[in-house]
Amino acid sequence: MNTQFMKRAIELSKKGYGHVNPNPIVGSVIVKDGKIVGEGYHEKYGENHAERNAIKNAKGNLNGESLKGTTMYVTLEPCCHYGKTPPCTDAIIQNGISEVYVGCVDPNEKVSGNGVEILRKNGVKVHVGMLEDEIRKSNEIFLRYIKEREVFVIMKSGSSLDGKISTCTGESKWITSEESRRHAHSIRNRVMAIMVGVNTVIEDDPSLNVRDISENPNDPIKVIVDTNGRTPFDCKLLKNSGDKVILGVGESIEIEKIEKYKEIGVTVIKTPLYKGKVDLKFLIKRLGEMGIDSLLIEGGGNIHFSAFEQGIVNKVMMYFAPKIIGGSNSKTSVEGNGFEKLLETTEIEDMSIVKLGTDFLIDGYVKK
Amino acid sequence: MNTQFMKRAIELSKKGYGHVNPNPIVGSVIVKDGKIVGEGYHEKYGENHAERNAIKNAKGNLNGESLKGTTMYVTLEPCCHYGKTPPCTDAIIQNGISEVYVGCVDPNEKVSGNGVEILRKNGVKVHVGMLEDEIRKSNEIFLRYIKEREVFVIMKSGSSLDGKISTCTGESKWITSEESRRHAHSIRNRVMAIMVGVNTVIEDDPSLNVRDISENPNDPIKVIVDTNGRTPFDCKLLKNSGDKVILGVGESIEIEKIEKYKEIGVTVIKTPLYKGKVDLKFLIKRLGEMGIDSLLIEGGGNIHFSAFEQGIVNKVMMYFAPKIIGGSNSKTSVEGNGFEKLLETTEIEDMSIVKLGTDFLIDGYVKK
Repeated sequence: MNTQFMKRAIELSKKGYGHVNPNPIVGSVIVKDGKIVGEGYHEKYGENHAERNAIKNAKGNLNGESLKGTTMYVTLEPCCHYGKTPPCTDAIIQNGISEVYVGCVDPNEKVSGNGVEILRKNGVKVHVGMLEDEIRKSNEIFLRYIKEREVFVIMKSGSSLDGKISTCTGESKWITSEESRRHAHSIRNRVMAIMVGVNTVIEDDPSLNVRDISENPNDPIKVIVDTNGRTPFDCKLLKNSGDKVILGVGESIEIEKIEKYKEIGVTVIKTPLYKGKVDLKFLIKRLGEMGIDSLLIEGGGNIHFSAFEQGIVNKVMMYFAPKIIGGSNSKTSVEGNGFEKLLETTEIEDMSIVKLGTDFLIDGYVKK
Repeated sequence: MNTQFMKRAIELSKKGYGHVNPNPIVGSVIVKDGKIVGEGYHEKYGENHAERNAIKNAKGNLNGESLKGTTMYVTLEPCCHYGKTPPCTDAIIQNGISEVYVGCVDPNEKVSGNGVEILRKNGVKVHVGMLEDEIRKSNEIFLRYIKEREVFVIMKSGSSLDGKISTCTGESKWITSEESRRHAHSIRNRVMAIMVGVNTVIEDDPSLNVRDISENPNDPIKVIVDTNGRTPFDCKLLKNSGDKVILGVGESIEIEKIEKYKEIGVTVIKTPLYKGKVDLKFLIKRLGEMGIDSLLIEGGGNIHFSAFEQGIVNKVMMYFAPKIIGGSNSKTSVEGNGFEKLLETTEIEDMSIVKLGTDFLIDGYVKK
């Protein structure tokens, strides 16, 4: 047993971020005589699984030498059903791989331990659970979505130490460091959709694309929460990627407005009103049904508060810059009406803190 | 050379926090045959220095056996002048201590290397600089004050992750955890004075004492910033410790108001107005002249911003609780008008992050 091989498999798996959703990211290595002879990962939704890529890579490296007696490390349980590709368990058995280390059992009900069972029945020695916690965390989006298509929702903010996301005059570029912004783009690259409130669109006119991520960036769907249909037609989001925009509007909006947005390729989702605004719970449910497994909410403060109030947030990622901005009228990361009582506040658990240049990132999970 | 002995000396020195200001905290151990035979620290302003306490303790432990050939570890350079006590260099030489490890040279111009010189001239082997960074940090108040009597100013706040110090209805007890509050009391215990704005006095009626610190807590001076003399006579600060209260008022205040406060033992300092409020730079200068070496500003948000705007803050200690409170009207840790431009904001450097139960503490220094 050697965790270094599983670590490498995890590293490989992460290359799939943003390209396999709503599938899990999976990495795999094949080891012969204590050395890695093949590596692979699940590169793109609908294409070969990590195991087949690793086998193919190993065969190439070994110039046709057999894989008999080799050991495979794979982050997720090999599949045993015909999906978009044939079962990986077949490939493992046929190639004579004699031992398999599985990080985490696949919760997909079509697999869910059956993959391990089939391998064992065919004489393969299987070990389950190596670095499981790390693998589960790296696949938190998939693990949530596979259960009843629930969207994994991340709230992201970048603020000063006193919680401000802009100065009293509205200056906000840039509060956080280059390292923080690059890191935030790597998160954008992992999710299927990014959400902002219409005020952010009007005030900042963001493009919400994935920058500074070298290889092959993901182009996430943009969701605008816009109760009354105020999104300007000349904003970057509509001009550059109208067909990748989903507009969440309130049921009270006029039908003509909806039609105009639809004409330029925008998908419009009408929701009931929650306290006079778009019902985010309803909207998220629709997004999940559309196959969107993950959503990054990038503000502003009002949409953040609505998301916490309606209980749709799973994770927070809050970047802090070592600055004091001040100002009773300066905007903060979470606004809206706010919780009235301390007992009602949203609590965060499993918090971790990472330094990013001079900034730091708090990441944590909403306590249920 | 063994840093473990200096570490113990540092540990001992910290027992003096809050009782020796504006002197430095100092700790000392005496080592014979690789074992500690005597320990001491500077216990109280005006009383014996750490070195004499360690020598006394060693003599007791050794039942009159000589200290000849022993080694002393002392966090700060031994004094060589008659202050409130005779020179420690004399005691070291007379007792035949043959080797001294000094953490940090005393910047006091009466010592400033002379203590080391005298020891060396008398045949004592002296080494300077062991764990100096740590010792300098533990004496940051003294090291600032010794230069031109400049008060070391710490800004303290306790907030949610989104920077709120109360809910929209004003609930603030308690946002931070018991561990954070206990830690904050240990900081109160180190400083000579605590400052709050009059709004905090009116709204929260705090007592600003030192609680939950077991042995012999310090009772810091309370400074209220109150431009127009609105501090209520029945507030806890005036009722419980009027004679330990300093009121900073604007020069426009009526003389009768000042007299009434003075009658109950309050010290009143009149300052020019800065943007219509108490000039904090002026006030701090007066406090320094009165022998106050350190000040902890405990809010609210307006006084915090004034302190940053006027450039009087040296260090920030910001406690964060893993909560989201929200609210565009909820109070935040730093308010006032706020800085207009990002280039004008107060920058924090040398930041460190410590977990305190479920909370965490950011501590850092204002970039000059």
